[in-house]
Amino acid sequence: MLTLPFLPVPTRQKSSAIRACAMDRRSTISTHFPPLLHRDLALDLASAMDSRLESRLLPSSVPDEIKSFKNQSGTSIGSIDIRYGAPDSSIDFVLESWLHCKVPNGTIDITSLLVYQNDRTDAPHFNLELIQGGPTTLVLLLDLLPRKDLALFPNYIEKYYQETNLDKFRQEIEKLGEVKPYNSPSLYIRSVLSPTAIAVSINCGENGTVKMEEIINGTVRNVAKEVLEVWLDECVGTGTEMGEEERESMMRRDKVVKSKSIEIDLQANFPKLFDQEVSSRVIAEIQKAFER
Amino acid sequence: MLTLPFLPVPTRQKSSAIRACAMDRRSTISTHFPPLLHRDLALDLASAMDSRLESRLLPSSVPDEIKSFKNQSGTSIGSIDIRYGAPDSSIDFVLESWLHCKVPNGTIDITSLLVYQNDRTDAPHFNLELIQGGPTTLVLLLDLLPRKDLALFPNYIEKYYQETNLDKFRQEIEKLGEVKPYNSPSLYIRSVLSPTAIAVSINCGENGTVKMEEIINGTVRNVAKEVLEVWLDECVGTGTEMGEEERESMMRRDKVVKSKSIEIDLQANFPKLFDQEVSSRVIAEIQKAFER
Repeated sequence: MLTLPFLPVPTRQKSSAIRACAMDRRSTISTHFPPLLHRDLALDLASAMDSRLESRLLPSSVPDEIKSFKNQSGTSIGSIDIRYGAPDSSIDFVLESWLHCKVPNGTIDITSLLVYQNDRTDAPHFNLELIQGGPTTLVLLLDLLPRKDLALFPNYIEKYYQETNLDKFRQEIEKLGEVKPYNSPSLYIRSVLSPTAIAVSINCGENGTVKMEEIINGTVRNVAKEVLEVWLDECVGTGTEMGEEERESMMRRDKVVKSKSIEIDLQANFPKLFDQEVSSRVIAEIQKAFER
Repeated sequence: MLTLPFLPVPTRQKSSAIRACAMDRRSTISTHFPPLLHRDLALDLASAMDSRLESRLLPSSVPDEIKSFKNQSGTSIGSIDIRYGAPDSSIDFVLESWLHCKVPNGTIDITSLLVYQNDRTDAPHFNLELIQGGPTTLVLLLDLLPRKDLALFPNYIEKYYQETNLDKFRQEIEKLGEVKPYNSPSLYIRSVLSPTAIAVSINCGENGTVKMEEIINGTVRNVAKEVLEVWLDECVGTGTEMGEEERESMMRRDKVVKSKSIEIDLQANFPKLFDQEVSSRVIAEIQKAFER
């Protein structure tokens, strides 16, 4: 196993460009969306990601109509940003997505932060989803998505999941009394997760808003920050030397994972939350990143 | 997807040979081992397996010293049987293992029923483990082990896990109040399981023996029978047409899974439960089946 000669990971001091970007995001999201318990945490994680990936990313690639969109009746609001990796970077793209939708039994807020890597590295992708169906329930999906068949590559488990001690964070979350494992209804989605994936549903019961706030700003915040840190430290700018065939087979796998994710997560759900026309436009933009 | 021209699955009428085999096993196990809550269930499942696989299996391949063994002080007792698949059968081997061991804080009983298939089919292997650390706790591992990288082969999930409705059984078990998900300490073992794997620990608390008996003979029995039935119906004598390369890649994967299983399950634990000499003999016999 070798560490490839990538650009060094930038140190964490904030440049004025990053500060501006973080403030810009924070004010856009706060202005467009109603208040939400997990939003501050998600904004902080997105900013932490920016600070570390700065030199590896190109500016946003999406038009304003994707950065901010809603359905005709205004009950569903969304904001999506996609930034591609700079040339020579191992980052394929960063996708940030904020959705707030009225649904028959209340509202649903889905926040995603997803970073896919390219064929310069075999290191995992980063995947965070926070889903609130009200102020007292939260589904948290947090994982470093493997890029190889783990049953066939035990060394990959060793390197990215065992030695990084990721299971500790899963255990920390699952210790909470309000937490239950979350099994995605899609067997495919379950199959792409790593053995240390955090996939939980947190339910604080009626009048549990204060408790939920405490959990989000306590354990969930700590764990999410730590997992992101592991990913930034161990998976960006690192990798295992690969032959051409191995690289091709990894990219073939990535391609299937991306196309199934679009099919399962977006094509099935988006049109239920937004008008057909808005849906198509947004999905097309995401597809551009997933399929390039 | 094609159904391959295998031998028809024998019907379920019991021949006298099967009856004799089942009675033989039942009396051997009952004579050698102290009473145990899950034993009847495991014996019934092993018999059900026999009835259906009869014509596909050769007689037992193990010497008496493997069919029954113990450590010097007699505190650990074991019985292992291995039957290889008949020529033309898709069964590679059936491994049945019964272990009863005194450990510092009580006793541990581990019963396993494992069927590996060969390269005539891509259909999953069958894996059942029942582990009791006393009369009120049970770890249940029950899965049809996939033989392909599920992220790369969504059709494989569809065929063997979705259409067979296996997740229903996992949900049924997990509904029980005494049940918690069981995460193997080995990240590798977690990685070889299917998305519908049943991996639970059942704890009935102090004085919970009657409750445990009820659960074992109720939900656990029903679910285990159903899952075995699905495997017998959908995975034995069936399969997907494969090219030579695909077959080779599947067998390469199987080989890694088998060798890691021996390393994790046996080489690490067996010598703690039995004397070195007994351990080595038993592991060598199992290795013969796993590595041929």
